[in-house]
Amino acid sequence: MLDYALLDALAAVVREGSFERAARTLHVTASAVSQRVRLLEERLGQVLVVRGQPCSATTAGRLLCRHAEQVALLEGALRAELPALQSDAGWATLPVAVNADSLATWFVGAAAAFAQAEPRVLLDLGVDDQDHTAERLHAGEVLAAVSADEHAAPGCRRVPLGRLRYVATASPAYVARHFAAGVDATALARAPALVFDRKDRLQQRWAQRAAGQAVEMPRHWLPSSQGFVDATLAGLGWGLNPEPLVRPLLAAGTLVELVPDSALDVPLAWQHTRIALPALQRLTDCVVEAARGTLEP
Amino acid sequence: MLDYALLDALAAVVREGSFERAARTLHVTASAVSQRVRLLEERLGQVLVVRGQPCSATTAGRLLCRHAEQVALLEGALRAELPALQSDAGWATLPVAVNADSLATWFVGAAAAFAQAEPRVLLDLGVDDQDHTAERLHAGEVLAAVSADEHAAPGCRRVPLGRLRYVATASPAYVARHFAAGVDATALARAPALVFDRKDRLQQRWAQRAAGQAVEMPRHWLPSSQGFVDATLAGLGWGLNPEPLVRPLLAAGTLVELVPDSALDVPLAWQHTRIALPALQRLTDCVVEAARGTLEP
Repeated sequence: MLDYALLDALAAVVREGSFERAARTLHVTASAVSQRVRLLEERLGQVLVVRGQPCSATTAGRLLCRHAEQVALLEGALRAELPALQSDAGWATLPVAVNADSLATWFVGAAAAFAQAEPRVLLDLGVDDQDHTAERLHAGEVLAAVSADEHAAPGCRRVPLGRLRYVATASPAYVARHFAAGVDATALARAPALVFDRKDRLQQRWAQRAAGQAVEMPRHWLPSSQGFVDATLAGLGWGLNPEPLVRPLLAAGTLVELVPDSALDVPLAWQHTRIALPALQRLTDCVVEAARGTLEP
Repeated sequence: MLDYALLDALAAVVREGSFERAARTLHVTASAVSQRVRLLEERLGQVLVVRGQPCSATTAGRLLCRHAEQVALLEGALRAELPALQSDAGWATLPVAVNADSLATWFVGAAAAFAQAEPRVLLDLGVDDQDHTAERLHAGEVLAAVSADEHAAPGCRRVPLGRLRYVATASPAYVARHFAAGVDATALARAPALVFDRKDRLQQRWAQRAAGQAVEMPRHWLPSSQGFVDATLAGLGWGLNPEPLVRPLLAAGTLVELVPDSALDVPLAWQHTRIALPALQRLTDCVVEAARGTLEP
């Protein structure tokens, strides 16, 4: 068996981001934590933690952390069945990657339902683009992910969730200023678009379809789902907003759709490791249920 | 003078995240872009771009990109004064680091006012913790930042903006379940807290003050300002929410303050490079004005 005291120390450093904070959660000294991690590194002959602010795991370190988390989740399930173990029950943490727009629309509902059903399991939600969350799963950083990837990651199960509908929106004043003569390649090349981050290709895809050609657009970068809606309302630019977030604003006329019936649907799926973890199965049930209420079938 | 065609290619690769997309914005082939970046790297004798998905700048590459952005902003100001240059006017991009809660509360208003005043300048907003945005300024990734740092970064001017007020909140049902006997160290050690990410120390600071001692709390990690509010409402955990975001929810009683009058104020400042860029001065004016409307004096 692996030495789980050493693994625990490694997982705490990566979770907390520093040796000092890891020491506090483990109720030992920072030098004890440092010694344990170094011992593990010597045994494996490779660096497991990048010492920085915050500390982070190397590829090998991530794989060990994922293993430690899986063991903790299995222990949690065992404790539920063996009440004698219950007295020193700890907390297990389930790392999950979610795209920002799912987190802003339907995922919190799934998380809350899960927390109610599994009160001893904590969620560690990391945010990434829906086209990149599966990479985190593949890299061993998370045990499950909301992803737009059409293929299951290696060793993973893929459960389709439905499609998140995006509507190209702007404020009425913005449309009057930039798109009075219609939405074509010329207008799109002059009207600033909102783009979430470097990984976000949605505006580009929509513009190419609307203009019938690739368009180079001026772009404001704004990595926040609610900020994106606020900036569209304030007239900073046009952008693709999740339909569930802007539905009331479209109905009230404070935002308008740039081109009628030009929504772009992004199919999302839940991908999770095939390792049989009862908590993960429970989270899967909550995710499927919450997605059903918001996503298009 | 530096070879600006080469610098342009470098800046485009870093901005777009790939050589192919940089080539499209520059209207040249990807191999031309690659050749230019390689040439610049050979001249400087160091790697400037980490080839990845997406591509990113090395430390030296970032310094060059910042310089290219500054030159583009100065060109923009020149073009405004020399209408003869105006015909081929391009877009300049101003990179700024903002903390997530400012972006979720008052910063979008500043950005919209700025875009109205400077319609040829785009904003590239990056999100980081208020205790870490100044590092991005220092690293040359951005020209300005909303920061909680009490000291001006080297070569920067610091303008105090006011204090963002945080309130420790939970749903009434959550309070009844976890804090029926009051908010003390024992209760806090058992009640899951919401924490934004590894850099977020707010909950820890508040709990230490409330309990009169350091407390190790179980934590859900949730890196989204609006998601934080939604998760508090849904009863996933307790957490420190920006007062401007939760004011209506507290008034309606759907959220309650854990301990009356225990708000924690985070003083924020605007820090920007001292290089005289008219667009940056304009953004500073808009930021100070928008902050005044939301932050505590």
